[in-house]
Amino acid sequence: MSTRHQELSIRTSKKLESVDVSDLVSRVVEESGIAEGVCVLFVPHTTAAITANEHFDPNVARDILKALGRAVPDEEQWDHPEDNAPAHVKATLTGPSLTVPVSGGKLALGQWQGLYFMEYDGPRTRRLSVTIIS
Amino acid sequence: MSTRHQELSIRTSKKLESVDVSDLVSRVVEESGIAEGVCVLFVPHTTAAITANEHFDPNVARDILKALGRAVPDEEQWDHPEDNAPAHVKATLTGPSLTVPVSGGKLALGQWQGLYFMEYDGPRTRRLSVTIIS
Amino acid sequence: MSTRHQELSIRTSKKLESVDVSDLVSRVVEESGIAEGVCVLFVPHTTAAITANEHFDPNVARDILKALGRAVPDEEQWDHPEDNAPAHVKATLTGPSLTVPVSGGKLALGQWQGLYFMEYDGPRTRRLSVTIIS
Repeated sequence: MSTRHQELSIRTSKKLESVDVSDLVSRVVEESGIAEGVCVLFVPHTTAAITANEHFDPNVARDILKALGRAVPDEEQWDHPEDNAPAHVKATLTGPSLTVPVSGGKLALGQWQGLYFMEYDGPRTRRLSVTIIS
Repeated sequence: MSTRHQELSIRTSKKLESVDVSDLVSRVVEESGIAEGVCVLFVPHTTAAITANEHFDPNVARDILKALGRAVPDEEQWDHPEDNAPAHVKATLTGPSLTVPVSGGKLALGQWQGLYFMEYDGPRTRRLSVTIIS
Repeated sequence: MSTRHQELSIRTSKKLESVDVSDLVSRVVEESGIAEGVCVLFVPHTTAAITANEHFDPNVARDILKALGRAVPDEEQWDHPEDNAPAHVKATLTGPSLTVPVSGGKLALGQWQGLYFMEYDGPRTRRLSVTIIS
């Protein structure tokens, strides 16, 4: 058994942004030397999240941001001050963790899938925790 | 330590569908011979997802499809062409991965819980990745 | 390799409630003696879920409940009887599982993050499954 833990730093540049972290995470997996197992991604923040979705057309990630903006509108009444309550809600709807299988020493993503770090209250310097277990 | 990886094939028959995969996944867990650990389910697609919910009343899964249809309406403006932007959004809201404990050689699901493969842009032949770690 | 499995009991007191389970889960992790690995949280119910979000301001968890109430309104038409279809939908939107890294013998949560058991159809006595893998 082997556990490999690493933390990546991600600099976001907008209030709402989807950052394709597929290459960053793939590199960690490949450098770990682990052939079979799983890769656990975890976002240690409360206004950002992680997902997998299409990375061929960047419009898809933009549509996700747009749809979340409609489902959780800024202009509603919120109890939490700081004007970022919708960002917290979006983080929970997207989810703070994602587990991807590792097979043949690589992330076993689908053909059209990329990994997206979802920023809902940027721009900020963020962390993404990567744990590979085998 | 032991990792068991297997890929299941699922044939969906409608545009929007919830396929109960509890028995399929249970069989993989039981055949793995692993007594204690976790079972990681991962959907290598961008317009489908995985969840656990009630499998006693099939209306529940239909209500989930209906609620997602209201929260992410087809008739909105989307940037992604192909008419399936809502399917991508629903995949992220539901989530591409789910981790279920394995105990006593079986999936430790709750009494009313089943595992659902959620199809948001079918019908298609889909894959579901099952990794059991112990 | 080592797997440590434990089930916590949680008594909810309202129909809609977010219960901060950070301390409960932290204690299980610390007592396991496992230094490096992951902690898998799983909710074996179909009208409750698990998430991580801000635990400094309790308004955040209330805003999440409020936002889910707007996105999945009680007064819509549902097929499932029992008046709790929205609770099932919210459980899937939030997600039944969450995986948090364990590092240095502790849950590697972010500075502002707490773990929340989300009750959508209480009050009830609920279970939360904790599996630590290393």
